[in-house]
This record gives sequence, structure tokens and C-alpha cells, in this order.
Amino acid sequence: MKDLLITSVQNPRVKAVVALQQKSAERRRTGLFVVEGKRELEHCVETGLEVEEIFVCREIAVEMEEQANMWEVTKEVYEKMAYRGSTEGVMAVVKSKERRLEDLQLSENPLIVVVERVEKPGNLGAILRSADAAGADAVVVCDALTDLWNPNLIRSSIGAVFTVPCVVCSSEECIAYLKEHGIQILTAQLQDSRLYYDTDMRCGTAIVMGTEATGLTEVWRQAADAHIRIPMLGQLDSLNVSVSAAILLFEAVRQRKVIVES
Amino acid sequence: MKDLLITSVQNPRVKAVVALQQKSAERRRTGLFVVEGKRELEHCVETGLEVEEIFVCREIAVEMEEQANMWEVTKEVYEKMAYRGSTEGVMAVVKSKERRLEDLQLSENPLIVVVERVEKPGNLGAILRSADAAGADAVVVCDALTDLWNPNLIRSSIGAVFTVPCVVCSSEECIAYLKEHGIQILTAQLQDSRLYYDTDMRCGTAIVMGTEATGLTEVWRQAADAHIRIPMLGQLDSLNVSVSAAILLFEAVRQRKVIVES
Repeated sequence: MKDLLITSVQNPRVKAVVALQQKSAERRRTGLFVVEGKRELEHCVETGLEVEEIFVCREIAVEMEEQANMWEVTKEVYEKMAYRGSTEGVMAVVKSKERRLEDLQLSENPLIVVVERVEKPGNLGAILRSADAAGADAVVVCDALTDLWNPNLIRSSIGAVFTVPCVVCSSEECIAYLKEHGIQILTAQLQDSRLYYDTDMRCGTAIVMGTEATGLTEVWRQAADAHIRIPMLGQLDSLNVSVSAAILLFEAVRQRKVIVES
Repeated sequence: MKDLLITSVQNPRVKAVVALQQKSAERRRTGLFVVEGKRELEHCVETGLEVEEIFVCREIAVEMEEQANMWEVTKEVYEKMAYRGSTEGVMAVVKSKERRLEDLQLSENPLIVVVERVEKPGNLGAILRSADAAGADAVVVCDALTDLWNPNLIRSSIGAVFTVPCVVCSSEECIAYLKEHGIQILTAQLQDSRLYYDTDMRCGTAIVMGTEATGLTEVWRQAADAHIRIPMLGQLDSLNVSVSAAILLFEAVRQRKVIVES
């Protein structure tokens, strides 16, 4: 249907998408965000998020079925709207939904990642991707400096922001929740710490990561059941925060020896 | 000394630096590459690489001592030459040095990372960073699609490309070297594999990673002493290659329980 084809980058819908991609304030104000890529959009829909509008560039995504609220756009328009370049030709505007700690459905022996004040959306996305792979129950973002619907975060999570339950809250709220549920708090820090692999993670466990630059704040250090560290055996004394999170998460997986099919 | 101040982006030295930053062919042709950042440059010098020229932007790097072959540049010129932005105000042109397998000095129980055909310089840099942290003996890049002196690789390695011995060679050369030195070959792959934490890594070990898209080639699968995999417990079935490498490296660290100071 030709009347559903958008050919101008001046089109108000196009401008609205660009604003959502670029500004967290706009995402907050509208309660909307943008998902790019067919697979990411599928994960997004599977978690029950509501799609407002879909934009398809037929020059790129030839196999997309027609749907209600679907607009076709030219390649020029698509590239204007896209954060990722035109690799897949499908994007959508989606209603965000806030999830609270109380909404989490924990397994018997929960494994949770807590991230305090992480600055880079790319790092948070990478942590989400590893949390998905490790089968973590949830990722909790405390005192967030980025929103969960940042395009770079969604991209680097390759959709894990939809598959892993994510909550944004204050450190105090998170600590109260963990204590109430009897989940041990393991803070990743160098000072007064033991080696992570000498720490029992078979019971309900929250692994808490601070920023690469300044680490965790005092409130978390105080709340910890144990301080754990990854031994640094090289000259640089530094691991990427998302890599550290993955090493700690998979140590929990190893200790729990979750039965997996080969 | 005013005559050592470069103020024009048309200056041939500036153009030469830009070419080295942008083109691997130019790096190959000249045997030179560019290092940015004070700390990275220190690591580079410590490993015995020869610095040809240093460029300092005094508007940014006020504390840099004067040296032979040092040029001052204006902020505009610096930003033209910089890959990373003007964060530190120090960069240098350095002579690259090829390292061969025969030059490696292995520890008694070597731990080596082999990366076959990794596409993204950023991923290779991240692997180098984790290899440094895990105290690996070397990183071997087989059938390389990127050179070691790519600016994005140096950046994401935060200097580990200098602190960890790196060799570029063919898969066949690498396999012959590992067999000759009695180093077991563990290939990361899903098919016909056992869980990585059920695999003994206390003896001399090479962990071999393929690309995220297509995995390892047949020559490595055939040469392997064991195929290992990280269990995927989520919905996305995918870890970043540098995260996978870090998980496997630190499992070796855990099993070896290297004595580290607290």
C-alpha cells in the first residue's frame, strides 16, 4: 500500500524515532524506545512488550510479513533512523515497561547480577548478554547512569535486555530485597577480599559489580557477606567490568554444576 | 623550542600519522604504527620497541618531559592525528617488531590463547587484556584478518598488546609448535565437546578460539586433544568471543591455584 510508504526524512514519525534513539529524556518522557533487528524484535515481543509501530525497509528486509502499524520506508529514511546502520532493515517503536524488584520471579537458588553506577551502556549490554548465557535470574541496575533502552545497550546485549529480567532501583532498595530473600551478597572489590573461587556460590547469590574507575560505594561494601576478587596475574591489573562479571557468573555455574544437555 | 611546533594539519608528519592510523597496508609498508596515551606508550617502551617520534599537545598533556624526537602540536593537529580523541595528548610513531613462535619464552606450565581468524580488532584487544590478567604466556593469532598494530586493537587492549607476547602465524605452524612443546590443544566448540570445567587445564594448555560466526576450521578440530564448551543456560545461546576466552583462561587459573598475594 503506497500510502504507507515514508520517503522523507522530514516526516514527523522519522523525527520522533531519531529523537528516541538519541535522547534518554525523550525515552523517559514518552515511555517509548526503539528496537532494531528482526531477532531483537522477536525477543522483545516474546517478553510481552507492546509494539507501537514497525518500520521496514523493503530494499533490505525483503522477507518481513505485513502487519498492522507497519510503515515502509526508503533506504535513505531507514538509515536516518537507524542506530546500527542498515544491516537488517527492520525496527520498531516499543512501549517500555518498568519492572520492580517485587515482580521478579526467582528460582530456588537465585543467581543475580547487581551493577552499581555502570557508566557505559555497552558494558551493561555485555553484562546482560553474559547473564543470559549463565542463566541468571535477574540483573539489577542500581543508581543507574544509563537507561535500559539506550540503543547501544540493546545492541551490545544482542537482545538479552529482553530475555533477562532487568530492574532499575536504588542500592538501598536492592540490599533490602536481597537480605529479605536470604540471598548472599558478594561484592567484587580488591580490598579485604578473598579469591572468588574460594567462595561458595551454591546458595542464592548476588554478584555485585562497581565501576571500573571507582569500584563500589561504601553502602555495598558494608552490606556484603563476602568481598571477592579475581586474581590479577599480569602487568595491567585490570579487567573489563563485563568480563569480570562473566568470570564470576560462570564460577557460580561451575560450582552448581547445572545439568546441561550436550 | 618554537621550531618544533607543528600547527598545520597539512604538515607531512601529520599526514603520515593519519595514514598509519587508518591503513594496515601503510603500517605493513613502513613497519611503523602509532601508540596513543602515556601509559600505553610506557608499556610499549618497556617491551623494547623503538620510538621514532613523539607528538605532544601541551594544551592537554602538560606534564610530559621533553625528549629527543619530540614534536609539539596544536590541539587541532592532535585531534586530526588521534584515533581516540584528545584525552591524553601524547602519541608516538613506533617501529613494529615481528615476533615468531621460536622467540616465545614459555613458563614451565604454559597457558596460551590461540585465536583463529578473529575479525574484530576490538575483540582481539579485549582477549589480550584478559590474557594479561590471567598471566598467559602468549597470544597466537592464526591466519590473521587484522594486524596487531590496529589503533582499535591497541586501545581495547589498554596496552596488553605490549605486555603479552603476541605472535602472528599460520594455523599449521602453530599446531606444529604446540605439539612439539607437548602443550595440549583445547578447542572451544559446541560439537562433540565436554564442559570446560570438567577438563584438566593444569598441564601446559592452549585454548583455541574461532570466530563468533563460523567457529574453528577443521584443521584445529582435528588437531585438538579435547573439544570444550561453555554451557549456555539462557535463551540467546551466545557469548562474546573475548568473554568466552576470559572464562576459559580463568578456569585454568582456578585449577592451577597460582599463589597470589592478597
